[in-house]
Amino acid sequence: MSLPPEPFPSALERRKARWETYGEHRYLRLTDDFRGFPKGTLAWDDRLIPGYPRIGRIFRLEQGLAQQFSGPFWMEEKIDGFNIRIFRCGQEMLALSRGGYVCPFATDRAPEFIPLDLFDAHPDLVLCAELAGPDNPYTQGGPSFVSEDVRLFAFDMMRLGHPGFLSQAEKTALCNAFQLPVPRDFGRFVPGDWRDILTIVERLDAEGREGAVFKEDSPLGHRTKFVTAWSGVYDIAVRADDTVELPGDFFTGRILRMALYLDETGRERDERLERELGRAFLDGLGRSVERFKRDGRVAHDFRCRFRRRENALAFMDHLRAILGHTHIAQRRLEEEGNFWVLEFEKEVPKLTGLLHQLFRGVSILD
Amino acid sequence: MSLPPEPFPSALERRKARWETYGEHRYLRLTDDFRGFPKGTLAWDDRLIPGYPRIGRIFRLEQGLAQQFSGPFWMEEKIDGFNIRIFRCGQEMLALSRGGYVCPFATDRAPEFIPLDLFDAHPDLVLCAELAGPDNPYTQGGPSFVSEDVRLFAFDMMRLGHPGFLSQAEKTALCNAFQLPVPRDFGRFVPGDWRDILTIVERLDAEGREGAVFKEDSPLGHRTKFVTAWSGVYDIAVRADDTVELPGDFFTGRILRMALYLDETGRERDERLERELGRAFLDGLGRSVERFKRDGRVAHDFRCRFRRRENALAFMDHLRAILGHTHIAQRRLEEEGNFWVLEFEKEVPKLTGLLHQLFRGVSILD
Repeated sequence: MSLPPEPFPSALERRKARWETYGEHRYLRLTDDFRGFPKGTLAWDDRLIPGYPRIGRIFRLEQGLAQQFSGPFWMEEKIDGFNIRIFRCGQEMLALSRGGYVCPFATDRAPEFIPLDLFDAHPDLVLCAELAGPDNPYTQGGPSFVSEDVRLFAFDMMRLGHPGFLSQAEKTALCNAFQLPVPRDFGRFVPGDWRDILTIVERLDAEGREGAVFKEDSPLGHRTKFVTAWSGVYDIAVRADDTVELPGDFFTGRILRMALYLDETGRERDERLERELGRAFLDGLGRSVERFKRDGRVAHDFRCRFRRRENALAFMDHLRAILGHTHIAQRRLEEEGNFWVLEFEKEVPKLTGLLHQLFRGVSILD
Repeated sequence: MSLPPEPFPSALERRKARWETYGEHRYLRLTDDFRGFPKGTLAWDDRLIPGYPRIGRIFRLEQGLAQQFSGPFWMEEKIDGFNIRIFRCGQEMLALSRGGYVCPFATDRAPEFIPLDLFDAHPDLVLCAELAGPDNPYTQGGPSFVSEDVRLFAFDMMRLGHPGFLSQAEKTALCNAFQLPVPRDFGRFVPGDWRDILTIVERLDAEGREGAVFKEDSPLGHRTKFVTAWSGVYDIAVRADDTVELPGDFFTGRILRMALYLDETGRERDERLERELGRAFLDGLGRSVERFKRDGRVAHDFRCRFRRRENALAFMDHLRAILGHTHIAQRRLEEEGNFWVLEFEKEVPKLTGLLHQLFRGVSILD
């Protein structure tokens, strides 16, 4: 590799970048935000692959949209999965995780959803997508409308070497031309349209959908997001067994979102939502307690499908490298039809440790 | 004052003790646990007033009692109020907060519940009690069975200069002789009785009571506590509007307690509890949002009654000194019958600040 592109020479000096390997490839990864470049930005050979910027969240539509946007913006459905960036490397496409690792799972599955033609026509394209569904190796749960495996939703495009997004028109044209799967696009709005937007969000809430992303239509177009009350309950339901692992704010932040959402929509007391929120907590932790009593530890089960066995093995290596060997246990890797099905467990160490203490009868000063 | 008693000379050197004043009195207060003496231990003239030790909590009765006690212990009802210690100073009694400040409120009201005769007969007695009820100046809410004002419950006794508790027999004899108000005493048990104890706790839960304290019957008798599922919901209901103020663990810890409680009692899914838990969160925060929209800030209202006006004023000074002027606003101090009724507001600054931002439409990276 010749001299890596800016900002990597200085980032390396400041220990904000690290060398990583994927197969034969060596690449540089920003391990933190650095000089305006987000964490996860890469130097791949001599090209810069922009990181996907973090997107802030508004808690009130009316005031939030007015504060965040001075002109028109696009509204798209927010999909509850994990963020990947896909780019071409030689005759294959590679997929990066948000943090900037080549992800063997996303790399294995992306070609089913994205034609390589896209990159023949646009070799410097970086496609930003969400990979979402119950059979993914990173997050518990997924969108209610993906009943099995995973699906991919392309929602943004960038170019190698150029931080910033393609315009909505260019992106839409490419998605149409190559028939890329995309999230629902609700159209173009201005901040004064917040009541119409709230009506759409209320429909998303009723359908058990996560929420929306709002995008200013310019290369460095500002983005912000807003989620439904349903999404708060859902997050708590799938993560309640991580209670002790996650910062407490994970939960209280979601409840604050819900309270503000209910206030803005002017809903009366919602008994169903109350019961679902309480159940989300108690069921989630109850599951962990059951599991602990059965297995002596709390763990999450993951299951995902690969096209190629070596990608499944590479994925397990990747997880072990990131999380440490103790917390990951491969349970099964078998061929089923056209797939290699990988099943593994991820231990929840803090809750396991705490339950060990509590079931031994330790008393806690709290 | 001559040389203060141990451990104060060394604690002063290590900055673990501070001089405080109350009226004409100067006294030393341990600001941290120090050499086995709990925070809140005092040097009053040349006498040591032992601090009240922190009491650990068990999350499982069966294993917890077996682990914490090797022999018999007493079981008493746990009262949801604030801990005070009462001692005699000249011809009056003074009451200390847990942290070791003379509390003008508890000092004003204690004589209604405790006869001074007690201290004539036992001048070196330190009476440990809970002051509980809706009209207290420290905590939101209180026990369901105290419908107005406050009541006092004497639950332990110590002696000046002697860390450690009087025996259960001595304590009970004194409580009977002087007709002191006490929490319910459920009797003497051994760890193997945990099923009977659970039955009592289940009754407490059904009655909306907080839980129980278990006490080994010896001078340094070990103590531990266990609370009902109801108490978790109640704590969340009264503190939900402090969501952002409190560490997130405040809430998740309570939910973990509830999950373990439900598991140990073998209850089936409890729809009422689920709904109450969800409502506790959403109502609590909903109240804060309403208040913020009305007043531009979130605050808790307190109301309490004093016998003497000067004690009310001293109490406000005390709070301002501890919490800072900005967060406390006196609203009313008026004579009503035999009382001076004090009303004040305590601001909830972090949630106020966060809601200011969110209602301005700020977007948050979370």
